[in-house]
Amino acid sequence: MAESLEPTPVVTTTVGRYLATRLVQLGCRHLFGLPGDFNLNLLDEMLAAGDGAGGDIVWMGSANELNAAYAADGYARVGRTVGALVTTYGVGELSAVNGIAGAYAEDVPIVHIAGLPSRASIRSGARLHHTLLDGDFLHFVRMFAEVTAAQAVLDGEDAAAEIDRVLETMLATSKPVYLGVPLDVARAGVDASRLATPLARPASDPDAVAAFAEALRARVERMDRLTVLAGPGVHRRGLEEGVARLAETAGVRIASQVGSKAILDETHPASLGTYLGRNTLDPRSQAVVDDAGVLVMIGTVFSDFTTGFFSHRYEPAHAIELALDHARIGPAVYPAVRLQDGLAALQDAVADLAFALTADVPPAEPLETPRDDSAPLDHAALWAVLQEWIDGPAGAGGTTLIAEAGTAFYGALDLTLPARSDLLGQPVWSSIGYTLPAAWGAALARRDRRPVLVIGDGSAQLTVQELGRLLDQPNAPVVLLLDNDGYTVERKIQSPDAVYQDIPRWDWNALPAALGARAARVHEAATPGELRGALAEAGDRSTSHFVRVRLGRDDAPRLLVALAAGIAEANARA
Amino acid sequence: MAESLEPTPVVTTTVGRYLATRLVQLGCRHLFGLPGDFNLNLLDEMLAAGDGAGGDIVWMGSANELNAAYAADGYARVGRTVGALVTTYGVGELSAVNGIAGAYAEDVPIVHIAGLPSRASIRSGARLHHTLLDGDFLHFVRMFAEVTAAQAVLDGEDAAAEIDRVLETMLATSKPVYLGVPLDVARAGVDASRLATPLARPASDPDAVAAFAEALRARVERMDRLTVLAGPGVHRRGLEEGVARLAETAGVRIASQVGSKAILDETHPASLGTYLGRNTLDPRSQAVVDDAGVLVMIGTVFSDFTTGFFSHRYEPAHAIELALDHARIGPAVYPAVRLQDGLAALQDAVADLAFALTADVPPAEPLETPRDDSAPLDHAALWAVLQEWIDGPAGAGGTTLIAEAGTAFYGALDLTLPARSDLLGQPVWSSIGYTLPAAWGAALARRDRRPVLVIGDGSAQLTVQELGRLLDQPNAPVVLLLDNDGYTVERKIQSPDAVYQDIPRWDWNALPAALGARAARVHEAATPGELRGALAEAGDRSTSHFVRVRLGRDDAPRLLVALAAGIAEANARA
Repeated sequence: MAESLEPTPVVTTTVGRYLATRLVQLGCRHLFGLPGDFNLNLLDEMLAAGDGAGGDIVWMGSANELNAAYAADGYARVGRTVGALVTTYGVGELSAVNGIAGAYAEDVPIVHIAGLPSRASIRSGARLHHTLLDGDFLHFVRMFAEVTAAQAVLDGEDAAAEIDRVLETMLATSKPVYLGVPLDVARAGVDASRLATPLARPASDPDAVAAFAEALRARVERMDRLTVLAGPGVHRRGLEEGVARLAETAGVRIASQVGSKAILDETHPASLGTYLGRNTLDPRSQAVVDDAGVLVMIGTVFSDFTTGFFSHRYEPAHAIELALDHARIGPAVYPAVRLQDGLAALQDAVADLAFALTADVPPAEPLETPRDDSAPLDHAALWAVLQEWIDGPAGAGGTTLIAEAGTAFYGALDLTLPARSDLLGQPVWSSIGYTLPAAWGAALARRDRRPVLVIGDGSAQLTVQELGRLLDQPNAPVVLLLDNDGYTVERKIQSPDAVYQDIPRWDWNALPAALGARAARVHEAATPGELRGALAEAGDRSTSHFVRVRLGRDDAPRLLVALAAGIAEANARA
Repeated sequence: MAESLEPTPVVTTTVGRYLATRLVQLGCRHLFGLPGDFNLNLLDEMLAAGDGAGGDIVWMGSANELNAAYAADGYARVGRTVGALVTTYGVGELSAVNGIAGAYAEDVPIVHIAGLPSRASIRSGARLHHTLLDGDFLHFVRMFAEVTAAQAVLDGEDAAAEIDRVLETMLATSKPVYLGVPLDVARAGVDASRLATPLARPASDPDAVAAFAEALRARVERMDRLTVLAGPGVHRRGLEEGVARLAETAGVRIASQVGSKAILDETHPASLGTYLGRNTLDPRSQAVVDDAGVLVMIGTVFSDFTTGFFSHRYEPAHAIELALDHARIGPAVYPAVRLQDGLAALQDAVADLAFALTADVPPAEPLETPRDDSAPLDHAALWAVLQEWIDGPAGAGGTTLIAEAGTAFYGALDLTLPARSDLLGQPVWSSIGYTLPAAWGAALARRDRRPVLVIGDGSAQLTVQELGRLLDQPNAPVVLLLDNDGYTVERKIQSPDAVYQDIPRWDWNALPAALGARAARVHEAATPGELRGALAEAGDRSTSHFVRVRLGRDDAPRLLVALAAGIAEANARA
């Protein structure tokens, strides 16, 4: 062994600073959450990390922990990065767990960092506030183990390695992870030398990629058509352009799933729009996907809502699949081929080919312009007017359209959207209230795009606290609040007149200013003409805009009606 | 075996109706929560239970599930009853779990009822929305197992027995429990005959009670003084009057814990006020408890905050203890002696005795009336003015004072309160935001009392959605919103100027009306005189009142300063 003449100098930092630096290295520059007595050391260290430890991170104080989790999730999705939140032990972290579960269900990489009591308190089972008074301090990390891909309660000694292990699992799986940091560990010294090696997602095995590429080429060359179904995994890896490039090969057709609308510009001739089994807008699009023979699935999700309640006719087992962490050709699985390498192999395989056009599927018809500008507004008119606005100069700079589960998301799915205008929603987990804080995260993640949030009154009540924070963002958010007297989505499923469908009437026009967004302009629209006028004024990007959109209690867009009918049918069958 | 000539007619009901009827039998007439597609059958059945199944229950639609859990908790505590909430699977139930954990930590009996997907979906691992898409539908019940005393996912066959088992565990332990009801089970038929036998808490063993009574009498007769420390268990069993009656015996002194202030009227000569170890207001009171020799602990809680950070000098192991589910004389435990029977034995044992008065502890001095009515308001003046108001005609009808963890709760503890005026707070779990929805529950649970909520701006932001529902209650609630620019309690612990201590400035005066309480009167108070004036107007019980109380950012009451110093010291030691 070679002998070193001088000992290598050990650069130390603190656990909190180390963690913050790792987050910044991963592209996460905003930290959501709330302070609490068990995380003050941690926050002091993490927010001081800019003092020379290699990075800096900006605190985004949230009104509550659920909202912080939703905001971190929206930030990660739209920024194609990772999200982070800091909460305190017990009372804080548990409020966030629904948001963490949603990130798990939808493959969103966020790290939930909880400040814990000291190691001495944990070891002795001290009878502290914020505990169950039973001496067991590990109840909550066990709960998080159900909805995260990795967990650690840091113990000082190997804190840096543990942090890296947990964050690398987040990168590899695109799932949320959990770090518990006892308050004394937050300040403990740790060797900073690991920071010189950035964390990375596990690479593909080059031999496996080569084998897959060869098999794929052989398979694809035998195919007479090539139909792609692209899902939200494409967003998680930021591979939208790579997928869209497939459309340069003649005859390739590309459909998107509900969680990844418009990966290919929906006016592109190769676009099949959004696939939802029997609920697909154009039955010809549905048929192309269902009759693909060998469907190419890229980052897809298989669930009730993505398949029109399992009314799909394509056969996943026969498909070519590029998943986040593996590739597959029918029954042959290539575990060590990651999505980006699988996609590159596909691009190579199809580049010099041409496929027969399977069926003539013209681009979606534009939504019908409302005939009477002074009639009461309904969903048909709402989405048509919004489509006009997005297609006009207002949408030119790129928007992040954020649409809440319910009438908003299922209305937005029938829009024809340009590429690179995200439609952010939560189609698997579908937790109402998600989008309002998520829109705040989205606004921070993409400063160059304008956030446009569409949300119903029932959903907005769950998380309304962040309305002021959202509207105060400098990229001039627009909020369309669909005021329709309660839970329209539930009314469409069952018992429309039940007392539990009602919500208290709020004075929505007063809320933006009351919640701190004093500069936001407030509009009201009860007719198509008023909505068009309000949106025209919202073209002014010098400030944010809030539009109260008045709709009938039982009015809903096409897809929501179909979705609710599907749920009602499934419930009745049971 | 005797033969029955006629078969007993089997009266059937549905699982949902059975459950609602059980709740009504237990005194629970209000059901909090939100609808979701997996609980619509359940809600339809539960809310229809009044159609002849023996009871009826009123739906209290909540803005979100955490708020529903807090409201159910406040309802159970103040009503001396059980609370109930209904949520939907995954997205709903997980948002409530922090509230359920708080109920566990503080021994509050509430049942969390979650509507689940159908049994067929669960068995087949269907890839449904609101799941993690991994086929495992039991993630969430496993999470709830960490923070509830019993759980069941109903399977139809033995649903009635399972409901009864879970609810009886709630009664026996005074802890929260969890019931998962698949949507098909909610409507399934079930034998109603069990409903003829009401559920009850387990009774004491009469032999054990007799043995305890005898040993207790012998022990007490040898004692020259008798000092009682009464805790929140007394509230959970509604035994306040029984404890207060102990003060009829000469020389008996009674102190309360922080979670059960004023079980004995605090102006009563036998009252020692509120015991908090070294943080007790009057050191003479502290000394009487600490030097009791054999302290009589009734329904007490042992934690950092109840002992002044373990600065107590009394010895729990030597005490006579009456706990919810057992009694103890020093090392001798009587497992089958429940609190009410232990207390009855104690009453008998002391009834004919007289003890020496241990020390002269005069009633607490009244808080000093502010000298300058036009000076900026501070906490000292705030609580003195509130004390005057409670002592005056405004407080005569009985109030439920609800005080949020932080400056509010630790300010309220230094008030001198009349008996049977609950001070509702959450001193163990201490989850900020708890009291706002809990006050709504309290308002429903005790219609005959006026709810008075004191809450800081930082805390109110977490759960503000219920402000309108609270202020719309017919018993004319009063809300004192302490507007002091952020998390004063955290500022007192550490880093008072850190960015994470700040919150957005809301227009509090506009919020009651914006959130639906159009009839509430809004007042503003920045001086003692203005506060006195606002409270005088709030004497008008024809409507509810909201008072924005303006305080300095770093001003805090005596006890909060002591508490924060204790936390800071504990953190620094670690």
